[in-house]
Amino acid sequence: MAYNELRKDYLLNRWVVIATERSRRPSDLVKPHPKTAQTATCPLCEGNEAMTPPALLIYQKNGEHTTDPIKGERVKNWLVRVIPNLYPAFTPPKQPQDTALIFRGECFGNAIGHHEIVVESALHDEGPADADLPQLELALNAYIDRFKELSNKPYVKYVSIFRNYGLEAGASLSHAHSQIIATPMVPAVIGEEEQAARMYRQKTGRCVFCDIIRRERSGPRQIMDTGEFVVFAPYAAINPLEFWIFPTRHTSNIADLTPTEVKGLATILKDTLTALKTVLSDPPYNYGIHQTQTQDGSYHWHLEVYPKVATWAGFEKSTGIYINTVSPEASAESLKAASKNPA
Amino acid sequence: MAYNELRKDYLLNRWVVIATERSRRPSDLVKPHPKTAQTATCPLCEGNEAMTPPALLIYQKNGEHTTDPIKGERVKNWLVRVIPNLYPAFTPPKQPQDTALIFRGECFGNAIGHHEIVVESALHDEGPADADLPQLELALNAYIDRFKELSNKPYVKYVSIFRNYGLEAGASLSHAHSQIIATPMVPAVIGEEEQAARMYRQKTGRCVFCDIIRRERSGPRQIMDTGEFVVFAPYAAINPLEFWIFPTRHTSNIADLTPTEVKGLATILKDTLTALKTVLSDPPYNYGIHQTQTQDGSYHWHLEVYPKVATWAGFEKSTGIYINTVSPEASAESLKAASKNPA
Repeated sequence: MAYNELRKDYLLNRWVVIATERSRRPSDLVKPHPKTAQTATCPLCEGNEAMTPPALLIYQKNGEHTTDPIKGERVKNWLVRVIPNLYPAFTPPKQPQDTALIFRGECFGNAIGHHEIVVESALHDEGPADADLPQLELALNAYIDRFKELSNKPYVKYVSIFRNYGLEAGASLSHAHSQIIATPMVPAVIGEEEQAARMYRQKTGRCVFCDIIRRERSGPRQIMDTGEFVVFAPYAAINPLEFWIFPTRHTSNIADLTPTEVKGLATILKDTLTALKTVLSDPPYNYGIHQTQTQDGSYHWHLEVYPKVATWAGFEKSTGIYINTVSPEASAESLKAASKNPA
Repeated sequence: MAYNELRKDYLLNRWVVIATERSRRPSDLVKPHPKTAQTATCPLCEGNEAMTPPALLIYQKNGEHTTDPIKGERVKNWLVRVIPNLYPAFTPPKQPQDTALIFRGECFGNAIGHHEIVVESALHDEGPADADLPQLELALNAYIDRFKELSNKPYVKYVSIFRNYGLEAGASLSHAHSQIIATPMVPAVIGEEEQAARMYRQKTGRCVFCDIIRRERSGPRQIMDTGEFVVFAPYAAINPLEFWIFPTRHTSNIADLTPTEVKGLATILKDTLTALKTVLSDPPYNYGIHQTQTQDGSYHWHLEVYPKVATWAGFEKSTGIYINTVSPEASAESLKAASKNPA
């Protein structure tokens, strides 16, 4: 028996042990159908608009974009709605002078920002793997519209767009939805990637992500390649079946995606999440977009998908070293096979 | 309504939002009794010694310390056993020349090290909250003995000692046990703490952890204080009900704990885990010891307990910013009350 491999992330100081003796194939990780949160009446379903705060953005069936009136009736006949989170982690400044972070020895600040819900469809179960492409494109357009609006605010330093699917992945509502959190600082993970990318660029003149794409698209971890987008299992994936979706066009964030690129992203997101559903029998998952507002050209946005099939325990939590029981190469092989031969 | 608080860890570049609107009291987090892993026959119970690899260390009822014979009968009448993990993440070098890490551009290494199981008791359910103190002291002595042995090996740079309790916290066997993983590099979390502590010491001449203890032992996050050990909820806890146990004597690791200190640690570990059991009705949890092999005096070992009551989702995973729905002050109050008035 050879040693297990220790691998470091491309950019982060994050190590993983690829410990494949513990579980041989991705199919060993299949669990019973994921639990979904149960609510008597879904506040995000069509007809229940009055159960939520007024919407910040509505795509209507007539093609118009609007918001809910502040008082009175909510807009019906919508395709996508973006609403404030009823239990926000970050909230907008109440006074103009509150907009800055208050630091006491760099340890403390006010959680100023925004926390929103993107209701991806009026239909309860119409998430990315199940929606028609035009519906999924609308949801992605809502990401873009809100990113532009939020990243433009002076107190916002980062806009995190993410999705939780399944109760075990933290989705407390099972209706198809994503979340957007705008924060007053650049998150640690993004900051560390940004810094590494900037150093690489100063040294080589090239984008480190473009170089990673170039290497991965022709190697054993490649899953899909449409020319416009490349999907691969990252070299030091910390989750079984983890995959990252990269645009081949070098750009810092999703603000200037063309309609064709949005269509391409919708297609590849649907195809890869459908493949994941096939391989692991509809597992819970999280995804998050990594992007920056900085326009110095060092960063390259992408979307990371984390299937939730393992439990991080005392070792991971107390050391920051991860154990992954499925090699990224085996993950890629399974996802690639499933996307060529959909069940 | 005031803003939610953003807090940074004492040393790590890790931020948390204390978002208490989302859940008001620790008691809101009580879940049904934790699931435990089911196995037909427990390989760690007394009488089933043959189901495990030979033990590396055995504390016998007659007071002797021994190991299992390599072949043949396993030793019976034991109090604590340490055995190799059957599915090790890290394995010892097979050849002397394998002892070094092999780096290709700092991205790759062999997972050389050790992975062991400390069977804390011959009785299935006798974990730290339920064991008699003398039994718990034996388990802690086994931590110390194995730490001394493993940290002395030239290829070991860190010895992680941790415990998973409950299936949801990653315990795939429900028998009372801890794990020890010896790694060929200093983990990121420890390295970052060590570096910050070293800088603080160069600047002030003092131990940053001693200063943290001094501040926390008299403040609103203090839970217990025996003179020898102090327990508090950390200022920027990322888990509800998280608490840290610190020895007041400044020392880098557990190697030179005196018998009195081991007794003191057993007592405070039992008392705090019992209080946690009372507050959250026996929740799953993880704990890990933070320590170093470096003897330059900058580091100060401690034990961190992470109750598993929340789910880290897309936001946490893609940004490294955490959301904690219970303030460390409320956590401390609950645990303090429960430890004064045990249920």
